[in-house]
Amino acid sequence: MIERYSLSPMRELWTEEAEYGRWLEVELAAVAALAELGAIPAGAAEAISRRARLEPELIRRSRQIEREIGHDLLAFIWALEERVGPEGRFLHKGLTSSDVKDTALAMAMRAGLAVLIDELKALLAVLADKAREYKTTLMVGRTHGVHAEPTTFGLKLLNFYYELERDLARLEEAREAISYGKASGAVGTYAHIEPRAEELICRRLGLKPAKVSDQVIARDRHAQALAALALLGAGLERLAVEIRNLSRTEIAEVHEGLPHGSSSMPHKRNPIASETVSGLARLLRANLQAALENITLWHERDISHSSVERVIIPDSFMAAHWMVRRMREVLENLVVDPARMRENLELTRGAIFSQAVLLKLVEKGLPRRRAHELVQQLSARAEREGRSLKELLLEDETVRAQLGAEEIEALFDHGHYLRHVEEVFARFTPDLDSRPAAR
Amino acid sequence: MIERYSLSPMRELWTEEAEYGRWLEVELAAVAALAELGAIPAGAAEAISRRARLEPELIRRSRQIEREIGHDLLAFIWALEERVGPEGRFLHKGLTSSDVKDTALAMAMRAGLAVLIDELKALLAVLADKAREYKTTLMVGRTHGVHAEPTTFGLKLLNFYYELERDLARLEEAREAISYGKASGAVGTYAHIEPRAEELICRRLGLKPAKVSDQVIARDRHAQALAALALLGAGLERLAVEIRNLSRTEIAEVHEGLPHGSSSMPHKRNPIASETVSGLARLLRANLQAALENITLWHERDISHSSVERVIIPDSFMAAHWMVRRMREVLENLVVDPARMRENLELTRGAIFSQAVLLKLVEKGLPRRRAHELVQQLSARAEREGRSLKELLLEDETVRAQLGAEEIEALFDHGHYLRHVEEVFARFTPDLDSRPAAR
Amino acid sequence: MIERYSLSPMRELWTEEAEYGRWLEVELAAVAALAELGAIPAGAAEAISRRARLEPELIRRSRQIEREIGHDLLAFIWALEERVGPEGRFLHKGLTSSDVKDTALAMAMRAGLAVLIDELKALLAVLADKAREYKTTLMVGRTHGVHAEPTTFGLKLLNFYYELERDLARLEEAREAISYGKASGAVGTYAHIEPRAEELICRRLGLKPAKVSDQVIARDRHAQALAALALLGAGLERLAVEIRNLSRTEIAEVHEGLPHGSSSMPHKRNPIASETVSGLARLLRANLQAALENITLWHERDISHSSVERVIIPDSFMAAHWMVRRMREVLENLVVDPARMRENLELTRGAIFSQAVLLKLVEKGLPRRRAHELVQQLSARAEREGRSLKELLLEDETVRAQLGAEEIEALFDHGHYLRHVEEVFARFTPDLDSRPAAR
Amino acid sequence: MIERYSLSPMRELWTEEAEYGRWLEVELAAVAALAELGAIPAGAAEAISRRARLEPELIRRSRQIEREIGHDLLAFIWALEERVGPEGRFLHKGLTSSDVKDTALAMAMRAGLAVLIDELKALLAVLADKAREYKTTLMVGRTHGVHAEPTTFGLKLLNFYYELERDLARLEEAREAISYGKASGAVGTYAHIEPRAEELICRRLGLKPAKVSDQVIARDRHAQALAALALLGAGLERLAVEIRNLSRTEIAEVHEGLPHGSSSMPHKRNPIASETVSGLARLLRANLQAALENITLWHERDISHSSVERVIIPDSFMAAHWMVRRMREVLENLVVDPARMRENLELTRGAIFSQAVLLKLVEKGLPRRRAHELVQQLSARAEREGRSLKELLLEDETVRAQLGAEEIEALFDHGHYLRHVEEVFARFTPDLDSRPAAR
Repeated sequence: MIERYSLSPMRELWTEEAEYGRWLEVELAAVAALAELGAIPAGAAEAISRRARLEPELIRRSRQIEREIGHDLLAFIWALEERVGPEGRFLHKGLTSSDVKDTALAMAMRAGLAVLIDELKALLAVLADKAREYKTTLMVGRTHGVHAEPTTFGLKLLNFYYELERDLARLEEAREAISYGKASGAVGTYAHIEPRAEELICRRLGLKPAKVSDQVIARDRHAQALAALALLGAGLERLAVEIRNLSRTEIAEVHEGLPHGSSSMPHKRNPIASETVSGLARLLRANLQAALENITLWHERDISHSSVERVIIPDSFMAAHWMVRRMREVLENLVVDPARMRENLELTRGAIFSQAVLLKLVEKGLPRRRAHELVQQLSARAEREGRSLKELLLEDETVRAQLGAEEIEALFDHGHYLRHVEEVFARFTPDLDSRPAAR
Repeated sequence: MIERYSLSPMRELWTEEAEYGRWLEVELAAVAALAELGAIPAGAAEAISRRARLEPELIRRSRQIEREIGHDLLAFIWALEERVGPEGRFLHKGLTSSDVKDTALAMAMRAGLAVLIDELKALLAVLADKAREYKTTLMVGRTHGVHAEPTTFGLKLLNFYYELERDLARLEEAREAISYGKASGAVGTYAHIEPRAEELICRRLGLKPAKVSDQVIARDRHAQALAALALLGAGLERLAVEIRNLSRTEIAEVHEGLPHGSSSMPHKRNPIASETVSGLARLLRANLQAALENITLWHERDISHSSVERVIIPDSFMAAHWMVRRMREVLENLVVDPARMRENLELTRGAIFSQAVLLKLVEKGLPRRRAHELVQQLSARAEREGRSLKELLLEDETVRAQLGAEEIEALFDHGHYLRHVEEVFARFTPDLDSRPAAR
Repeated sequence: MIERYSLSPMRELWTEEAEYGRWLEVELAAVAALAELGAIPAGAAEAISRRARLEPELIRRSRQIEREIGHDLLAFIWALEERVGPEGRFLHKGLTSSDVKDTALAMAMRAGLAVLIDELKALLAVLADKAREYKTTLMVGRTHGVHAEPTTFGLKLLNFYYELERDLARLEEAREAISYGKASGAVGTYAHIEPRAEELICRRLGLKPAKVSDQVIARDRHAQALAALALLGAGLERLAVEIRNLSRTEIAEVHEGLPHGSSSMPHKRNPIASETVSGLARLLRANLQAALENITLWHERDISHSSVERVIIPDSFMAAHWMVRRMREVLENLVVDPARMRENLELTRGAIFSQAVLLKLVEKGLPRRRAHELVQQLSARAEREGRSLKELLLEDETVRAQLGAEEIEALFDHGHYLRHVEEVFARFTPDLDSRPAAR
Repeated sequence: MIERYSLSPMRELWTEEAEYGRWLEVELAAVAALAELGAIPAGAAEAISRRARLEPELIRRSRQIEREIGHDLLAFIWALEERVGPEGRFLHKGLTSSDVKDTALAMAMRAGLAVLIDELKALLAVLADKAREYKTTLMVGRTHGVHAEPTTFGLKLLNFYYELERDLARLEEAREAISYGKASGAVGTYAHIEPRAEELICRRLGLKPAKVSDQVIARDRHAQALAALALLGAGLERLAVEIRNLSRTEIAEVHEGLPHGSSSMPHKRNPIASETVSGLARLLRANLQAALENITLWHERDISHSSVERVIIPDSFMAAHWMVRRMREVLENLVVDPARMRENLELTRGAIFSQAVLLKLVEKGLPRRRAHELVQQLSARAEREGRSLKELLLEDETVRAQLGAEEIEALFDHGHYLRHVEEVFARFTPDLDSRPAAR
């Protein structure tokens, strides 16, 4: 991922150095496990773990060998062996490259998901606060982009809260799905290593051993993780698009309180952060598509997934992390204008109460269809003539045959729409801390 | 979905009649709930539920009104109201279209997932049996499409078993995620209905009420379901591609025991069922992409998702169901040729034992890199000269300095690769029945 | 495609009957070609073309045989042979199924593209008229959803015109790419038929012969067609989203003049047609993804693409056709409110002229950065204090050191932004008729 | 794009330095154009073009300002202005950021397509040579992965040649579509600049001016380019998968003559380059999906596309370039084994001649269906009993009633399948040089 969209501590997980570091961890875990099982001399294990250090010189030498032989992991092991000396030949014993790489990748993805989960919890905490803060802040609800009925800004935010909480749950499921390592050899038969060693290696690294594997960890696990990221991206995008829409000049109910330049038009306040979040959601969706295609490897594996994963996995993790962080900054700095929300609520001169009118007429005995058509005509006339719906209702004979002036008056009451807000918030008991801790 | 890829009982869930039936169920549940809460007269509720029947005449009339007003649900309610008479005006009270449609859609998707889960369990049962049957059937493991080391056909199948079991878990998570209804009105404020009514309605229909909603049930739930289907599709595709590859004329280790015509070449036995499963996986992936784009609705909803969902949701459910069923038929009828598997195992004249040789040489004290290069050269020569690796090892001085003839002989032992198969199978304790029953 | 989104004359192209009809056309073209070349008896050809009619009984019988043998085209040929009698054995001579099916598919896609091209030209004609009609209708231009500078509605429409004209060009390129048939046999070697016959068959059907083929016409051709459709869909979506945004209650500069119901809120005017167009664009994008995956068939072909194409090709053609038609109806009925456009233009109290101010200050000698920061501060203050930018400029000492009152006044002139509109329209010389006629 | 998949000269096009360089080119072209039109003083233009140099210090300073103001292009202009001195205020006159950025992006993409087109022509030249070299090299054609009928390796390669040639045409169309610049200001009205200046600027940079624009160049142009890349990727993938399949141990008709290590199994020869090409095709497809979503910007533009494009455009160009280069290396080094091709041709003991038998029996008067079933039975028996089809035909009474021994013998003739190969190659007149030269 380009620097612009990568942030600490996610960025550091995906450097080449970090990858070498994880390979070394896996190789050392293997050496320790094999020594524990008596499969290699204890002295050799001890010598290896003493001498094998992730130093710049090791990486340099490893790259040099890679240029000769065109195989990154093999080069790393050979460089390590040179470093360690004769005992080095006990490195990588009974393992195949993918044992090391896929186990290391599981470590990286689990760590990445932990970072993301923490970041998302921080965003959720802000969202919960804001939802409560604006619990009864009246504004218009819009469907089809058109005014529908009153709602509150808090209720709107609560809706996003719950969606992102479901995304959190999906990230946690993905973390469980991806936390599996393997050390079962070239085609998964443990031909040159004991199943018991795999168990020890994985446990040492905080992973579980896959119950079965071929040369690799099955790619549905990785695709599930990228699906969780794509879904999270779409949830953030929905929130970002909401903010962009509410920031429109004509609506102006909220503004990002963040920098927002234009090179030519100095007056502008653009919701750039939210726009960027919207855009990156497309990248997460796209990368998922590639991850899904990666599942169908041939036989005990082919290597077609490898190049793709080198790009899409780091990119998706860094983009998702950037998006969550940025969205939190947007929310923390969000400028909300309740007065403007009230003003906008009046724009339709009462037409947003049409359902209340409809229901009252039906209650009074009008057939539903008849009532619907009547209110539709009066609403259209109100808009055409720039008058309020209430006025027209008061004048209309059919309506007045059913409803007195006071009854009509009572229908145009914002308070009515707030009646159940407390009850909805009463169901809202976020409990992020009781969730399994991120590791 | 076209008829060709839709099967009972999935197909029946997605007919227009079934949809009308679910709408009626939701409307009747609302009437019952509102009567229970005293919001409408008990007599009216009773009259409605007596007279509201899903008869052809009702559907005909509903379509007629739809042609006039261009709104399918409104037309249905009006037709229903005509049918029921005066009490009909208590239908749909306080509801908005999406209350009915999204709740009905949740019912359909939950039912569809239940059908799919049952179908997948049936496939898993066959796969479990086959895996056990071929537990020790030796065959070559292939990586990059090239012979790697021996494995067994049972182990291969077990790998698919576990992947599809993870798909089962994802379907079950998706079923939980989608089993939510709503009756919170036009923008989710319960403006004209009590939250308590929503609860009663949902419970009556076997759903849970969404903790918060705007006009609709949030679309991440539907996208999660289609993600589970796309992942399942990719898992089935991987199995299908395996069968297609093993069916190749040159490999011929398995054959679909199903019809497989060619209009021009009467001799052919084509793995057509597996090819079709491969293809339809692409459709499931594609539909997921559209479902992810559907998440970002504007404000309290726009209606851009509706047209897409009318196509992709039924299509994905029917295609996935067809694929699972077809894959089970493939497995049930699969013709396996263990003798051919043994023959193919010999094709490389022993080169597949190269890692065993490498490890033995390292064990004897050769540096890993030195040993690797040596075995690589001998393997290449063996292939070039059409001789066996064993022969060349016996002749090679460097090798013989380390290994006696008997030691060399012992390395070329298939049995070695079966050592841990029992242990892997011992971890295999499928327990499909203890899973939550499909409803 | 479901009935709702399929319209004549596109729908009729994709019925099963139409497909049988095309198969028959190809078989008859082959018989005629072979007779011409003397490869089958002239009398047989004559008898076949006299007796082979696409009658319901033939289709019924063909389906019956298909149920026995599981191969649709083979069943059709056998049914045809029964119908024709002994001379029927000269049917399909030297052909393989794909010769017939792929050639027939090319016919269908070419015809579908012709229908779509005509439909798009009709839309472009409306768009051209509307662009000219509103050439100088002032409205605000918006970037980031925020007011930027004045533009005209005609200019906006012209931009869509040009994009859709590029889509037209892409459809025409796709039509050329897809208009290729083949009759080269099972693996493309013309083993049992002359290349000359392929040429005659294709010419008779209005196609060109592929210069080389394996069993099938290469799938990049079909994918290019679906790419053209997906691009067209995105172009229509952009226009649809523009209309949806301009229809917002707060903006209200245009309205779809089409039906737009709500079951609960009788007052609403929703841009439903545009929303539906937006949605279906997702389906076209998704189907393209599957079409791209279809390209990589194995060797001389596998059949994994077939199931997918049965769904995505008709669906994409019908959806695209529906979208173009619907978008034309939207434009034809579009209610435009120039007065409201003028009102909205004033919403920022002159801030939209900030670039004019900036440029004038730079012209007077202020460094660009200095001028930029100054105008930015004044604009922000104007918004904060609800005052006009002009007022603040008149008061500001730095500004007044550079600009006199008249100079300031002159900067706030809408007319300035219309200066070059005529020139842009002068470049606009649509010439749809001189394009190659749709066949 | 990660370093691993980026190669000269494509890589250099997408560095940050190169981007600054293009911005400078556009700004200087604007200064020159405006001076030519008398809109800025000739002396200022002369001073600017003398002092504005892309030096490290300028970039350093630009980045510093960017950190302050969060706008990359504005920072660059301000840094440039500092560098140039007072005349610097005539920089960027009447332009908006996107005028510079989108014009610069068009330059980059046009150059990138030129590089890719050259690279693809080099690949096509190799493919043309190889196709001719193996024109009559007999091998089996495979459909469904199963032996079908004989073909030649040259014919197979020719098929790929034509597909990639169509990809070349699509790249050229994309280059035409993307070679458009703009200098029409913030919303495309030329409010502060003359249309004539746009024309001069674009011409100076080798681009055409867009006939109309809003703030940006419409994104369908960029999406068309990424569609061309995705289609190219799929074409390369099909070739790569072919090579992977022919490299299988059981088939072994070709081998990549490139390095191909395994860390654990020294004997292996893996088609790694082709596998990598297969994988990266998924990335190109995925990126297209995001590019298509980028089309629907709001009104005169929003900025959601920007972040995505920073990733997907360079990545797709670099990946595509790497893939074409790599595939050429694969072909140049490809080891072809005609002897093995002949051996494989015999694997089915003559069953691949079944269509020839079928056609002969029909010619003799058997109904097509009767003949089909007869040959199918005999082929199945031949496979079951491990005998040749010819033998069984000679024994079968129904067959012998129609065919004499010599006639039967004559059907099993490979030469028959080569009859028309010359004719197909005669149509093959590649003429890459007469295509418009890559700029």
